[in-house]
Amino acid sequence: MTHPERPVRAVVLLSGGLDSATALAIARSERRECHALSLRYGQRHEIELAAASNLARALGASQHLILDLPLDRWGGSALTGDFEVPKDRASEELGSGIPITYVPARNTVFLALALAWSETLGAEEIWIGVNALDYSGYPDCRPEFIRAFEEVARLGTKAGVEGNVRLSIRAPLQFLTKAEIIRKGIALGVDYSLTRSCYDPPTPDLHCGRCDSCLLRKKGFAEAGVEDPTRYAAP
Amino acid sequence: MTHPERPVRAVVLLSGGLDSATALAIARSERRECHALSLRYGQRHEIELAAASNLARALGASQHLILDLPLDRWGGSALTGDFEVPKDRASEELGSGIPITYVPARNTVFLALALAWSETLGAEEIWIGVNALDYSGYPDCRPEFIRAFEEVARLGTKAGVEGNVRLSIRAPLQFLTKAEIIRKGIALGVDYSLTRSCYDPPTPDLHCGRCDSCLLRKKGFAEAGVEDPTRYAAP
Repeated sequence: MTHPERPVRAVVLLSGGLDSATALAIARSERRECHALSLRYGQRHEIELAAASNLARALGASQHLILDLPLDRWGGSALTGDFEVPKDRASEELGSGIPITYVPARNTVFLALALAWSETLGAEEIWIGVNALDYSGYPDCRPEFIRAFEEVARLGTKAGVEGNVRLSIRAPLQFLTKAEIIRKGIALGVDYSLTRSCYDPPTPDLHCGRCDSCLLRKKGFAEAGVEDPTRYAAP
Repeated sequence: MTHPERPVRAVVLLSGGLDSATALAIARSERRECHALSLRYGQRHEIELAAASNLARALGASQHLILDLPLDRWGGSALTGDFEVPKDRASEELGSGIPITYVPARNTVFLALALAWSETLGAEEIWIGVNALDYSGYPDCRPEFIRAFEEVARLGTKAGVEGNVRLSIRAPLQFLTKAEIIRKGIALGVDYSLTRSCYDPPTPDLHCGRCDSCLLRKKGFAEAGVEDPTRYAAP
């Protein structure tokens, strides 16, 4: 069913980081009606949720929902406080192997929740800022994973079965480098000073500058030739 | 990786109902080390969670975890209190179409969480009591959905990518009628008086006897030729 009377409705997974902010900006540039979803899952960098709220507002999301999901009940990741966040890894290490900041099945869980909300809203799209190039080596950021999830969405929902909504998963950053993502966002007016990437922020206002996520962020701004608005504790 | 020194480890989705109790009993009969997972998702029949705890204990689960997941934040189902639970539907209606007790993408969300926990535990299996015959017409109970999710599990986890654990989704009730499920459970010693199926229990001790789930339950015991231990408000 298409709805000529209303814009395409989308659930956008919004972490508060650089990638998902850019994905939201792209969705808005395509005139999507955006329903932003963030998860409070016991992440040690919970400060990213305040960033997500600011970004949802700045980028014109229709609403922003923060859902509590206590993944720290079982842990299993440096991001939920079970191990130390690695620091100062060499750039060749960043893309090789799956680091301990990987949260077990996180994107599967997040997409499943986005799917549940999409179905309730009658949304046609789920947007996710995964990225298969300058990323941390997480399995659930790969294109083949996204395609497999799309099949689950089709088979496991009322909307998919009855065929009135063909839900698609939009992952517009999938094949972009971090520098390309940043350039795209800048062109769309994203204020990256509102975003938070750090896995282990020393204070609410600072990025550590040393975790994998900070290292990729720094490198991205440098390669994009764009001034990095981030305040890092370690330069 | 096989672990000759320990039993196969399984996460078992346990709602407190008849089907998942039977699935747990089958898993135990196959000597699985069972980690039972229940979700408090805003269901109006939250009483099923007490039943799940009793069943986990009675059937020898190694542990039982109840996770809070506020799906009622968006609603969209009679089970989360957004509509009335239908009563007294004719048996030919029960299998046709998707009823309003369908919770958007519920099994996708539950399997995703089971997957996250499995990966943390290093479990080899996820067990789910879905059933494609005497069921309520939910899309996310169908075999093709379960197979699609298995692919997501393989592609979206560290365990799947590194190939050290081949996670499988076990759905042993998939092709059984309700009567066959009950006979199987009785043979394995399941005390069905501990289970709760009702979508809209009038009191903690009673089943309404009129919702789709109660109707399927009654019919199952009748067809199995087994005395129904359930206390129904409406006979």
